[in-house]
Amino acid sequence: MDKSAQIDTWISDEIHEECGVFGIYDFDGNDIALSVYYGLFALQHRGQESCGIAVSDTSGPKGSVRSYKGMGLVNEVFTPESLEDLKGNIGVGHVRYSTAGASNRENTQPLVLNYVKGTLALAHNGNLVNAPELKEGLAYTGAIFQTTIDSEVIAYLIARERLQTRSVEEAVKNAMLKLKGAYSLVIMSPRKLIGARDPFGFRPLCIGKRGNSYVLASESAALDTVGADFVRDVEPGEVVMINQEGIHSDMSMTQPKKAKCIFEYIYFARPDSCLDSVSVYNSRIMAGRILAQTYAVEADIVVGVPDSGNAAAYGYSLESGIQLATAFVKNSYVGRTFIKPKQSMRESSVKIKLNVLRDVVKDKRVIMIDDSIVRGTTSERIVRMLKSAGAKEVHVRISSPPFLYPCYFGTDVPSDDQLIAHNNTVEKIRDMIGADSLGYLGVDRLSELIEGDRGYCDACFTGNYPIEPPKEDIRGEYDR
Amino acid sequence: MDKSAQIDTWISDEIHEECGVFGIYDFDGNDIALSVYYGLFALQHRGQESCGIAVSDTSGPKGSVRSYKGMGLVNEVFTPESLEDLKGNIGVGHVRYSTAGASNRENTQPLVLNYVKGTLALAHNGNLVNAPELKEGLAYTGAIFQTTIDSEVIAYLIARERLQTRSVEEAVKNAMLKLKGAYSLVIMSPRKLIGARDPFGFRPLCIGKRGNSYVLASESAALDTVGADFVRDVEPGEVVMINQEGIHSDMSMTQPKKAKCIFEYIYFARPDSCLDSVSVYNSRIMAGRILAQTYAVEADIVVGVPDSGNAAAYGYSLESGIQLATAFVKNSYVGRTFIKPKQSMRESSVKIKLNVLRDVVKDKRVIMIDDSIVRGTTSERIVRMLKSAGAKEVHVRISSPPFLYPCYFGTDVPSDDQLIAHNNTVEKIRDMIGADSLGYLGVDRLSELIEGDRGYCDACFTGNYPIEPPKEDIRGEYDR
Amino acid sequence: MDKSAQIDTWISDEIHEECGVFGIYDFDGNDIALSVYYGLFALQHRGQESCGIAVSDTSGPKGSVRSYKGMGLVNEVFTPESLEDLKGNIGVGHVRYSTAGASNRENTQPLVLNYVKGTLALAHNGNLVNAPELKEGLAYTGAIFQTTIDSEVIAYLIARERLQTRSVEEAVKNAMLKLKGAYSLVIMSPRKLIGARDPFGFRPLCIGKRGNSYVLASESAALDTVGADFVRDVEPGEVVMINQEGIHSDMSMTQPKKAKCIFEYIYFARPDSCLDSVSVYNSRIMAGRILAQTYAVEADIVVGVPDSGNAAAYGYSLESGIQLATAFVKNSYVGRTFIKPKQSMRESSVKIKLNVLRDVVKDKRVIMIDDSIVRGTTSERIVRMLKSAGAKEVHVRISSPPFLYPCYFGTDVPSDDQLIAHNNTVEKIRDMIGADSLGYLGVDRLSELIEGDRGYCDACFTGNYPIEPPKEDIRGEYDR
Amino acid sequence: MDKSAQIDTWISDEIHEECGVFGIYDFDGNDIALSVYYGLFALQHRGQESCGIAVSDTSGPKGSVRSYKGMGLVNEVFTPESLEDLKGNIGVGHVRYSTAGASNRENTQPLVLNYVKGTLALAHNGNLVNAPELKEGLAYTGAIFQTTIDSEVIAYLIARERLQTRSVEEAVKNAMLKLKGAYSLVIMSPRKLIGARDPFGFRPLCIGKRGNSYVLASESAALDTVGADFVRDVEPGEVVMINQEGIHSDMSMTQPKKAKCIFEYIYFARPDSCLDSVSVYNSRIMAGRILAQTYAVEADIVVGVPDSGNAAAYGYSLESGIQLATAFVKNSYVGRTFIKPKQSMRESSVKIKLNVLRDVVKDKRVIMIDDSIVRGTTSERIVRMLKSAGAKEVHVRISSPPFLYPCYFGTDVPSDDQLIAHNNTVEKIRDMIGADSLGYLGVDRLSELIEGDRGYCDACFTGNYPIEPPKEDIRGEYDR
Repeated sequence: MDKSAQIDTWISDEIHEECGVFGIYDFDGNDIALSVYYGLFALQHRGQESCGIAVSDTSGPKGSVRSYKGMGLVNEVFTPESLEDLKGNIGVGHVRYSTAGASNRENTQPLVLNYVKGTLALAHNGNLVNAPELKEGLAYTGAIFQTTIDSEVIAYLIARERLQTRSVEEAVKNAMLKLKGAYSLVIMSPRKLIGARDPFGFRPLCIGKRGNSYVLASESAALDTVGADFVRDVEPGEVVMINQEGIHSDMSMTQPKKAKCIFEYIYFARPDSCLDSVSVYNSRIMAGRILAQTYAVEADIVVGVPDSGNAAAYGYSLESGIQLATAFVKNSYVGRTFIKPKQSMRESSVKIKLNVLRDVVKDKRVIMIDDSIVRGTTSERIVRMLKSAGAKEVHVRISSPPFLYPCYFGTDVPSDDQLIAHNNTVEKIRDMIGADSLGYLGVDRLSELIEGDRGYCDACFTGNYPIEPPKEDIRGEYDR
Repeated sequence: MDKSAQIDTWISDEIHEECGVFGIYDFDGNDIALSVYYGLFALQHRGQESCGIAVSDTSGPKGSVRSYKGMGLVNEVFTPESLEDLKGNIGVGHVRYSTAGASNRENTQPLVLNYVKGTLALAHNGNLVNAPELKEGLAYTGAIFQTTIDSEVIAYLIARERLQTRSVEEAVKNAMLKLKGAYSLVIMSPRKLIGARDPFGFRPLCIGKRGNSYVLASESAALDTVGADFVRDVEPGEVVMINQEGIHSDMSMTQPKKAKCIFEYIYFARPDSCLDSVSVYNSRIMAGRILAQTYAVEADIVVGVPDSGNAAAYGYSLESGIQLATAFVKNSYVGRTFIKPKQSMRESSVKIKLNVLRDVVKDKRVIMIDDSIVRGTTSERIVRMLKSAGAKEVHVRISSPPFLYPCYFGTDVPSDDQLIAHNNTVEKIRDMIGADSLGYLGVDRLSELIEGDRGYCDACFTGNYPIEPPKEDIRGEYDR
Repeated sequence: MDKSAQIDTWISDEIHEECGVFGIYDFDGNDIALSVYYGLFALQHRGQESCGIAVSDTSGPKGSVRSYKGMGLVNEVFTPESLEDLKGNIGVGHVRYSTAGASNRENTQPLVLNYVKGTLALAHNGNLVNAPELKEGLAYTGAIFQTTIDSEVIAYLIARERLQTRSVEEAVKNAMLKLKGAYSLVIMSPRKLIGARDPFGFRPLCIGKRGNSYVLASESAALDTVGADFVRDVEPGEVVMINQEGIHSDMSMTQPKKAKCIFEYIYFARPDSCLDSVSVYNSRIMAGRILAQTYAVEADIVVGVPDSGNAAAYGYSLESGIQLATAFVKNSYVGRTFIKPKQSMRESSVKIKLNVLRDVVKDKRVIMIDDSIVRGTTSERIVRMLKSAGAKEVHVRISSPPFLYPCYFGTDVPSDDQLIAHNNTVEKIRDMIGADSLGYLGVDRLSELIEGDRGYCDACFTGNYPIEPPKEDIRGEYDR
Repeated sequence: MDKSAQIDTWISDEIHEECGVFGIYDFDGNDIALSVYYGLFALQHRGQESCGIAVSDTSGPKGSVRSYKGMGLVNEVFTPESLEDLKGNIGVGHVRYSTAGASNRENTQPLVLNYVKGTLALAHNGNLVNAPELKEGLAYTGAIFQTTIDSEVIAYLIARERLQTRSVEEAVKNAMLKLKGAYSLVIMSPRKLIGARDPFGFRPLCIGKRGNSYVLASESAALDTVGADFVRDVEPGEVVMINQEGIHSDMSMTQPKKAKCIFEYIYFARPDSCLDSVSVYNSRIMAGRILAQTYAVEADIVVGVPDSGNAAAYGYSLESGIQLATAFVKNSYVGRTFIKPKQSMRESSVKIKLNVLRDVVKDKRVIMIDDSIVRGTTSERIVRMLKSAGAKEVHVRISSPPFLYPCYFGTDVPSDDQLIAHNNTVEKIRDMIGADSLGYLGVDRLSELIEGDRGYCDACFTGNYPIEPPKEDIRGEYDR
């Protein structure tokens, strides 16, 4: 059996982002591979399966694009030698999330390809809903597919559009007219860096500046990491092209209706990022405040499930006046390749990853804040752990509404039947996880998380898909 | 250049524990390698250089001890296959810290050896101050040394004493009469598990029970991790011997004077551990309270430097009434093999590991709690980071007294001239790190951290060594 | 520096084949991955850079093709686990030679792709001379290229032809009409195994049978290795299609003019292979006989340079009556990752790979048979080694004519200016390598090596290219 | 299961040497690690389990010995980086053979240790018969053993003797008085290189010179490889000490009775080595000649089983006048980590490692020369292979007498009951392997292999052990 198959998944009842993208163009000609590497470190939470970097040296001949990709975390894939080899002053980087099925070397990004106008490197965050139709159309004109990622479809469309356009950025724009779904793209041609975001703006993308360099990144925290200042977000539907002359924006694809993923604020993004001008940390504090307003309960302490429940717990504490405390110690050494316990030990060994501070919770009425409940197994274990440690009551507050529908726009919120909330009432779930009370964030309060903005997607909670979802499961057919 | 040489050390101005030990004896004959593995995970913070496990099957022939050791973290060294091979119902495990010099394969533990009475496996946490003399004495009777670790010296002494004693536990006791320094030992003979702690009790060691198994561990959190209940601490000077008949204690080596490392409470140990009946978490809260009492200042928020500053910050907040806040986001993906930035990028790239939540600190007067200042470089960077993020004032409070003297008892507190506090006044240090005010925990308040107990070692702060320190640097001579 | 860059190349003044292909279809439904693995072992001499296997399970759903590829030798890339995962009863395998430039993970074969009719796996031995034109044509209709191998071009053509044909084998045939150059192909669709050979038959391909399985392989020795009986060669221009009904042949692409690579017989192929019904071993004996006839000299012993010179030395001995002897001992542990000596040690260290049996050559007049001289450096060193060991005379006989022209059909015979024979007379070369006499096999005698057949390519010796060679270097443009 | 357990052993019915040693001292102060590396390459056939190098820099401080060891072949263990770190002008190297039981990291050599006089590195080829007694004696004075290799026992004795001698070479001499068995030693102290050979001279050791360097090696071929000239053999019982003043010899331990391993000539050693002034290649030719004299048969060709049967086949051909031919092609890519075939495929897959040249043997009466028959399985397969290829008759000639007794002096000739000749007559063996006739080299002719010298050990054939063998199996007791 393959090593990765030994990875313990029983404890990780979590929802995953599917990618992070990064790009940089240094006009002074300095090597930027190390900056991309740091940028990817900052985005590692968005994808831990594989990663890659492609660079171009604008002073070299046209096709001199170099790339290095591999399975694993950024610090597993790259060595000082491999970074050293990536000489160039434009670069794109990518981190990708590991799903069981399509996890293989072929699917690593950035996709690097040759086409009629030279070399192109492409990094993509999101999921297309019309990839099967586009693939079928392309296949019927003779296309071959060597991966199962949407990026290859996008690359084909750009290559075809490029035949009748004067520039690669125009080809990108024309290709976007055919794409349906979520995509934030960072594309590198030998002399240009291009960023693009789908008209709904499902996935974030922002622009930074460091000295004489422009930077593109999924999250603003990655700008901080490389020492760049935040300039602005790429607008939904916008295409920005950066070349030696500077940065150029095309807004012709923008539209009034936006559908920014609300779950980026609740869980995916780093708390130190700002997405579309809203602080993620503040969003989470607000979620905590709303929970305190709507599901007040008498208690001694309020605690967050690390790491993403902490900010909401803080908000709950601020709003309710109940003392904030730390109840859990997380073991950060427990990584992806952790050897799983045998069935018989599972009950006792939840503590490998998370342990309780007994003195803190003993004889206390505890409000426990978490970001979501997916299948319910983890919540049940944590509640039990608190009770075994002596907590008198455990009141669970979830800083998102219940998951009811799958996501088709770049995350792995699973299909309906795997979601505990799909088949159970809140009261039933409360009973299943052993909590004394349970409260979810109301769907009607979501806009408050982003300062009243209504341009967000909450389809996983409401089923109101901004774009018609595909009839069948997208990824199965082309996977090998 | 060797890969490990590429590891970035610039950001880690930290003090390290030198080892963690673990042992288990399952009377029902179940395999325990997986439990040792989880126990080592729980102790990983005590040593990240190398690790190892040795097991014995009490139902097998006398010499059937198996071991597996390697350089790296627990999850890097062990595979499902290597654990599967470790069949046995008694086991000892060890994690070791990486110092630059003596980091090599030979020095991994447990030390497994054959001697006149069969096989012995030995795991050791601590440092002897008379290792050079003992080595010299042994060498003058023909001993050879294949490692540079003190454990080999201890093993020799046990082997020699065993010649004139009736049992291995007696040999351990006799050997202890010759050892000067810090040691918590877990020793396995084919049919026995032995725990021992030096009479001063520098390093912790505790006893747990899980069903029909006894467990020994450096910290109680490791008991939680394997689902064992805490029974009691091994007393300073005590030798416990666990065999098929049960657990046996010998207290004949105990003495009135104790010297438990106070820095275990302040920094080394996990907050969810209890050492010698004192909760580490509570110790840290107390440290924060004391700081609030002794170095009060008007401020808007109090923040901890993650992770070890958090509990003290909480205590400071509780005592002062000043709002606790989270100011830093730590990137847990930045591990040991992180590729270091070039000199020119260092200033901007401190943010790779730690980023500031701007909205939290902007225009605020901030009290920042950290556990210690060693060389001062990291503190200076963090203060600067807060100020760049808009903090109006930064008041630094350190939950330990200033480091003034090297440690010879199992940690790597360096020699005097590398310690910022050795050559500088507090005012000077404040200036060097750019803080608006600076306060250290008073030496006179240390006993309050452990409920008034006076039996602790504070030599790194006071120079009052419980045992005469060696004249010269210990490790240099025998290292290759 | 990358590890592979440390590989020593100074001693390997050798010409390399660029690939080996293998395929098998088991009608009984047995797993065949292990057989492909053994087949690739038997073909490892044809390519040591990378290897791969793709399998299909005809009892499974249509797209269930699995593949595993990697950089390195067959025994480095495959583990019991990776083979175990390759469940299926049709398989194709490939070994690839390492050239400096295009050695990367993307270029491993078999190429596995999805197209309009499902999945296709393709393994290719040879080189197209019109790949740039074909690529350009494809690019101008929107194709993208993710590799720099000709196989991708072939795959595109097949995919496009498949749009207007009724079967994949017809698509292959139509694609062949557009291909110019050398190719032996093994192609797998989910239910079919296809073998094809270019009309000139540059590279070999043969058919075997083992029980209820058909096998395709570059060389007949690979049939022996998997326990298959040789059935016949695939004819130049033939397409064979193997499906559940049996084996089907299409000869419509055959032509009278053949151009089988004569250097396969002289050097590339294993001596235990038969190519197009001619024993490679017998060819080499014949080359030795011809050399004895044309370049007779009085001598005491005749010796072969291992391993490929041995058979010709035997032939020389048989023809001349001069005693055959073994003069060299080869160190088979010296592999690809051998660390090279510094400049100063090179002279003495040729003996790392090859040593002389002093007693055998001392005071002897030696006829030394080698297969070729490329740059001359190795020959010079070996002659010197013999003389230092006491050989009185060294008469060099080469079992091929002098290399004068580059090869464009699947080997790496380099461009003119790197070939010693291009700029030097035989007498000059003799002087440069320090031999007492030097004789090459005559171009006019080549047909005798293959029993009088005239359908061979000798372009590297004569410049008579069977197909117009490309104007410029093929590989440079699209390489990254 | 561990990867190495997947290694196929079914085909390797071979006897193994247990070690090779190498040493060098460069008086000019040049780094010699690379030379040791090449020397180990030349000795790789003597041990493929593990290898190691230790070096000392005579210009540095006294203890500056560095070493690097690992499991695997020389080219797997050493990287350019690891060699680069081994700065020094004296060095010792070691290769070790892999037996199933005691194959672990602890047992790698050279053994590097600290003792009363500093650092010592020790490389050992051979086996002691009194190791258990010596170990017991040492254990009863308090010694601990961290390995299961005899070298550790030798090191202890040297360390103890050193307490009452004036020099390390004297200590070596005194220790030798207590050693019983086979040993060729290369020992390095910080300023000296020492070579020693047991008084019987079981295992070889020779001296070479390269410029201003002295070299010690198990075989003279290793001298050739590093460009050194052969000076002379170390005499049985001799101790040579090389220091800055030159080379010094002590012959006080020599004795009249010698017992050089005759199987070194027949099989173990490289054919290009000279051992104790006798060419190994000539020995083998002589063995072939004797077989032709004693077991003449009418036949068409005589062939050797590669590689060690080739020289004897040549001798047989010379003596008998029957044509020498090549019948087998060996696949040198089939290494240690070859994945073994399932039971059902074994019969057909012997050809993975060895294939027959059909045209050579078809319809021929074949004399097949091999060096030995151990369990008989391989011989049976090879004979069958020849017959399937069309050989009319197969006459097997073995260039050694039948194995009847285990070896206790440094090889792994197994215990009696595993030896086919122990329980079967020659006629029975002939029948079992399917040969038409079978002839072994006569015990009475062995001295002819080494020019009439009678000082050899033939205990594995005769049971006449030069030293009393141990009562029980040596290695079992102390192995873990």
